[in-house]
Amino acid sequence: MKRKLRGIVFAGVFLFTSIAFLVALGAGPGEADPKLNLIWIAPVGSIIALLFAGYLVWRIMRQSEGTERMQQIAKIIRQGARAYLKRQYVVLGIFLIVMSAILGVMVINGYLALPVPFAFLTGGFFSALCGFVGMLVATNSSARTAHACQTSLNGGLRVSFSSGVVMGLMVVGFGVLDLSIWYFILNWLYRDLEAVEKIRTIASTMVTFELGASSVALFARVGGGIYTKAADVGADIVGKVEAGIPEDDPRNPAAIADNVGDNVGDVAGMGADLYESYVGSIVATMALGAAAFAAKGLGLESITVPLMLSALGIVASIVGTFFVRAGEKADQAVLLRAIRTGIYLSAGLIAIGSFFIIRATLGIEHLGLYGSIMAGLAAGLVIGYSTEFFTSQRYWPTRSIAEQAQTGEATVVIAGLSVGMLSTLVPVLAVAGATIAAYAFAYGFRDASMGLYGIGVAAVGMLSTLGITLATDSYGPVADNAAGNAEMAGLPPIVRERASALDALGNTTAATGKGFAIGSAALTALALISAFKEEVLKFILNTPRFADFLQANGIIPEGFSAMSALQKLQFFERLPQDVQGLFLSRNFNLSLENPMVIVGLLIGAMFPFLFSSLTMRAVGRAASKIVLEVRRQFREIKGLLEGKAEPDSARAVDIVTRAAQREMILPALMAIITPLLVGVFLGVSALVGLLIGALASGFVVAVMMANAGGAWDNAKKYIEEGAYGGKGTFAHKASITGDTVGDPFKDTSGPSLNILIKLMSMVSLVFAAFIVASALLK
Amino acid sequence: MKRKLRGIVFAGVFLFTSIAFLVALGAGPGEADPKLNLIWIAPVGSIIALLFAGYLVWRIMRQSEGTERMQQIAKIIRQGARAYLKRQYVVLGIFLIVMSAILGVMVINGYLALPVPFAFLTGGFFSALCGFVGMLVATNSSARTAHACQTSLNGGLRVSFSSGVVMGLMVVGFGVLDLSIWYFILNWLYRDLEAVEKIRTIASTMVTFELGASSVALFARVGGGIYTKAADVGADIVGKVEAGIPEDDPRNPAAIADNVGDNVGDVAGMGADLYESYVGSIVATMALGAAAFAAKGLGLESITVPLMLSALGIVASIVGTFFVRAGEKADQAVLLRAIRTGIYLSAGLIAIGSFFIIRATLGIEHLGLYGSIMAGLAAGLVIGYSTEFFTSQRYWPTRSIAEQAQTGEATVVIAGLSVGMLSTLVPVLAVAGATIAAYAFAYGFRDASMGLYGIGVAAVGMLSTLGITLATDSYGPVADNAAGNAEMAGLPPIVRERASALDALGNTTAATGKGFAIGSAALTALALISAFKEEVLKFILNTPRFADFLQANGIIPEGFSAMSALQKLQFFERLPQDVQGLFLSRNFNLSLENPMVIVGLLIGAMFPFLFSSLTMRAVGRAASKIVLEVRRQFREIKGLLEGKAEPDSARAVDIVTRAAQREMILPALMAIITPLLVGVFLGVSALVGLLIGALASGFVVAVMMANAGGAWDNAKKYIEEGAYGGKGTFAHKASITGDTVGDPFKDTSGPSLNILIKLMSMVSLVFAAFIVASALLK
Repeated sequence: MKRKLRGIVFAGVFLFTSIAFLVALGAGPGEADPKLNLIWIAPVGSIIALLFAGYLVWRIMRQSEGTERMQQIAKIIRQGARAYLKRQYVVLGIFLIVMSAILGVMVINGYLALPVPFAFLTGGFFSALCGFVGMLVATNSSARTAHACQTSLNGGLRVSFSSGVVMGLMVVGFGVLDLSIWYFILNWLYRDLEAVEKIRTIASTMVTFELGASSVALFARVGGGIYTKAADVGADIVGKVEAGIPEDDPRNPAAIADNVGDNVGDVAGMGADLYESYVGSIVATMALGAAAFAAKGLGLESITVPLMLSALGIVASIVGTFFVRAGEKADQAVLLRAIRTGIYLSAGLIAIGSFFIIRATLGIEHLGLYGSIMAGLAAGLVIGYSTEFFTSQRYWPTRSIAEQAQTGEATVVIAGLSVGMLSTLVPVLAVAGATIAAYAFAYGFRDASMGLYGIGVAAVGMLSTLGITLATDSYGPVADNAAGNAEMAGLPPIVRERASALDALGNTTAATGKGFAIGSAALTALALISAFKEEVLKFILNTPRFADFLQANGIIPEGFSAMSALQKLQFFERLPQDVQGLFLSRNFNLSLENPMVIVGLLIGAMFPFLFSSLTMRAVGRAASKIVLEVRRQFREIKGLLEGKAEPDSARAVDIVTRAAQREMILPALMAIITPLLVGVFLGVSALVGLLIGALASGFVVAVMMANAGGAWDNAKKYIEEGAYGGKGTFAHKASITGDTVGDPFKDTSGPSLNILIKLMSMVSLVFAAFIVASALLK
Repeated sequence: MKRKLRGIVFAGVFLFTSIAFLVALGAGPGEADPKLNLIWIAPVGSIIALLFAGYLVWRIMRQSEGTERMQQIAKIIRQGARAYLKRQYVVLGIFLIVMSAILGVMVINGYLALPVPFAFLTGGFFSALCGFVGMLVATNSSARTAHACQTSLNGGLRVSFSSGVVMGLMVVGFGVLDLSIWYFILNWLYRDLEAVEKIRTIASTMVTFELGASSVALFARVGGGIYTKAADVGADIVGKVEAGIPEDDPRNPAAIADNVGDNVGDVAGMGADLYESYVGSIVATMALGAAAFAAKGLGLESITVPLMLSALGIVASIVGTFFVRAGEKADQAVLLRAIRTGIYLSAGLIAIGSFFIIRATLGIEHLGLYGSIMAGLAAGLVIGYSTEFFTSQRYWPTRSIAEQAQTGEATVVIAGLSVGMLSTLVPVLAVAGATIAAYAFAYGFRDASMGLYGIGVAAVGMLSTLGITLATDSYGPVADNAAGNAEMAGLPPIVRERASALDALGNTTAATGKGFAIGSAALTALALISAFKEEVLKFILNTPRFADFLQANGIIPEGFSAMSALQKLQFFERLPQDVQGLFLSRNFNLSLENPMVIVGLLIGAMFPFLFSSLTMRAVGRAASKIVLEVRRQFREIKGLLEGKAEPDSARAVDIVTRAAQREMILPALMAIITPLLVGVFLGVSALVGLLIGALASGFVVAVMMANAGGAWDNAKKYIEEGAYGGKGTFAHKASITGDTVGDPFKDTSGPSLNILIKLMSMVSLVFAAFIVASALLK
């Protein structure tokens, strides 16, 4: 079995490298410039990923789902998840159609290029698809994992991890494939445009693909996050705390909803989220590459490089997954080492391969960008380490939370918040360091836009291992569901123990995965904001009214393209005071000395708090509904607590589904509308301030929430493993409160913030022309 | 009695206005320019405040302290508080001496002017003095308030509120008096300097006064905050939750420490804090006024205006306090209305008076600044309203927390956090609006530095009512201690009820007071950061090395002062690209397009989280020590819980004192050292980014913490008043957990953040020359 698999993979890798070589030698199809033919690496790599994912699905489906009871439970959960997603997709469908119509109007008014609404729609579609397929695979794998755990831990790991790998490869495979296809289409569509214009148009159209992906992702994350945590909190409060029955007890009417939640939140939501992150880092880099290289009259290489780096990452991830294997002892350290080996191997392969990609495509003079990639990769690993340190029960931060559990709920909550706050130090310094390093490497004393491109490339570098990190992240919910299945189906305790061991490990790897997502989000958002600024400048200088003004005042000669003037002469900085004054009065001054920038920063820094408040309130409200319903069922269904009657799980599922759907709309819409409002009414400088303020505070709050949540969870697990008296003690009860507070932190509000900061930048970028026009008209 | 008082006040007000008139007519002593003689309003106003405060102290001390037991309890608390402050002042003394020595070295090296170390020392001294005297008055008033509550509610209000008024007037009185004296000294000392140079030197020396005040305030707030909350949390956890005995029960060994904590944290800490806020807004405005007016060749008026506005505020506050009176019904709404009447009346008087001050001093052409004052006053009132809305149990936010208490600790915590986060919206918008309005009013299409001066003036306007708002804020702890005294002395329940009614009201007014402090801190910090940027530019252009460079390259003619060139020609913006490039490469570019600015913003946004984490951990650690000690005493002292033995309160007091002293040092030092490190190693642009990032996120986090804490506290009170089953229910227990989590939020970490963001700016400002020199040497 293993040998067969390896054979297939190595065949794929061989195929991939041979094509790459052939293409590099100019034997490939297409472009005049052989360097550009290397782009074929991208679709080929992504197809390999999808084929391999398909193979894994086939292999998973061949496994037995166990007893009839197990199958039945799996089926109910599958149905619940599908019902939820179906409703969610109706809402998303309406949203996508309305947004495309708006984009269509802007196309008609000349603000946007023709393919934009289509790019938007496909982005949204594929983001949703990744979530949906991921959910299908996960819900089909949980009972099979439970069944495999009956035989051995390693068997359980293999099934659940395979399901995670499917998710990881599907996200990166679809991501690179979709972008490649769009690249080919646009390259053909704009074949007659002047080179600089062509590159810019391709880049800015592809950005709208990401707008679709990230708005769908935000809905999915928020909706799924509300669902999963409302169900979880609700089930825990009445079940574990009040009635004193164990987690996933079949008597608990919310147990099924809780398990459905893992799939719609932690799988479907996360799939859409990371698809968005991945695609986002690539298109943001493309946009910056277009700006940096077009100014030099260089070609499409800057756009193809991020795609090729990602394709390299796919292959490296596939190879890495083969090294994740566990022995029979359910020891966290051993399991963690297995997973780490895979990730490090992938990172190593990327470190080697990307050197050749940069050298072959951009040439020796841009080798500084290799340094940028390494900066991104390194920052990702540092963030991963830091996350593990702050959330694993093997280190003092999590243990200090457990210690404070001895003195009660309040001190456990305070300790967790303070660990979460403390844990923001290293990721911020890592991202700050990566930003400076990536910028400096790429800048090389030449120009600022190359430096910004370097920041984008660093984000791509950080996310290049996503195929495997996402796999290690998303097998957790499968293991969690397997544990639930084993409990509800009444399998022997060893099965649940093994599944729980996998789940516990999943907690730490999930936190690490979130760390990656957050770190890359900061870099990506930074890249997107820079792209927005470029877009604004371009638009201003292309606006006839402004160009007229410049010409009427003799600042530029008649017929002289304002844009090329900008590019060649660093035009803006050379404008005389009074023309710069026009910009100032029109609010295009981005200095911290401009009070509008400060006002934007203040509002931006507040926004993630407002957003988190809304999502947390939503969880609270939805959870309250579940609590009341579960209490009602315990009260009214006779014999339920004695195990003599069945709970009405369907009703619980239905209640959370409705609540989550309703609650996700306001926060998601706010994220889209706020940048537009600020841009139109307060001007571009306040808008850039808003974006950077939201980035800075959103980043910090997201790290704080993810790590506090993870640490509370593991502090509880640490106590359950026997510390401070173990299960059932006062300290244990207090630690459950901490865990419950952390639930919406780490699975609803925190991860949504990553998407939020990118979506806000994306909205600004896509609507840049409209925003600038409104500002100029004032 | 009342009539006599009023007579004295009106006599004072009459005296004040007559002097002002005489002075305005040029009959006063001193200056050639009659406008400048108006400055005499400032010392006269402040002396009136201090005299009136002295009269009130005399009146309070005439009241009886009640039974012997009451006197004894009051004495123990007084001793505990004094012992704590004594130790704290030893640490502060060492700090002040070391810092003065450092400043002295910088004076010798020519970075700073000669009076700087002395200004620093006096600032620190008076900040500490305000805390100390406030504590003395408060500890002498609590038993007297309890005694007065035996007769009537109004009697209790009169004593406790008088003590609050003493605190308020002492802070504003000392603030204005100290600054006036320094102004006279410096004005005389630099009488021979050229006008522009003189104004700038006076302003920048007075800023170091604030450096002393704010570093002492940070130590006092952090140390006092750790003390009060560790004692409170510790006493509550073992006493209320575990042993089930009421608050302030004499059997609780931490009850005395808890009451001492109210005095050293909520009184001494707050006194130092608000003295710092008040003085900070004045000196920041002076510094900006110097920059704005010196550029125009205008005189000292810009420096005297903030002092005169503050003096006006003092008189208005005194008048306002006479309208705070309560009937016999302990109704929150009535009490609140009484307090509001006083505040509104003061605000109205300021609104009228400041018009004449601006008109008489700066003349009709600068009447726009009157708009800036109004913007600040209005924003302060809006923030006050918003705070009340989010923290009073009369509105839905706090009630929603109480409602969530029905489902347990976790939901109460989540609800409180989410209310706190939501509550950041209005204050941020209010400050943003005030910033834009104050800038725009003052800017008047003329110049940016006038706009910045407007922002400073708005901060002064917001804090001008401090005399009375601080009074309404700081009588709370006195009432709290009175309630404690009544409980411990075994007085009839009605006494405790009356004192508790006063205390409950104090919760809401305290939150409002914190809102003012935070809002004004944001404006003040903004002003300080602007002043820092001015200082940097001034220093760069005065640096011989740079001036040489400019002259060597023929950019400025020989002998032409770079600074006046800057002022007259807006020099920097007119510099050619390559010279600007020098600035860029030396990291003086403040645009959001500069990655160093972004890096600074990221680190700055993280800093308040790091700081809060440290202070919260400190509370947790200190509280744990108390919990273990109280448990030990309950276990080891036989008959204690039965009321047959005395607890060892002194030991509990000693444990918290030591813990608080040790824990306050690291966070406070970090706040001082971080800006220096960032400035020296990452450059000025990263430093400005750091300051703005810390301002934005610190502001939001501070509001969140203050309001969440206040709302949790009042949600508990709401339940105790009978909602959701009232005292002793499951919901009540859960609400206590919320309150306990909120304690370090609202009384330790949150209020320290106000000082933090100002102190960081102040350190940068004072060490600007040193930082720039290091950056230029690189």
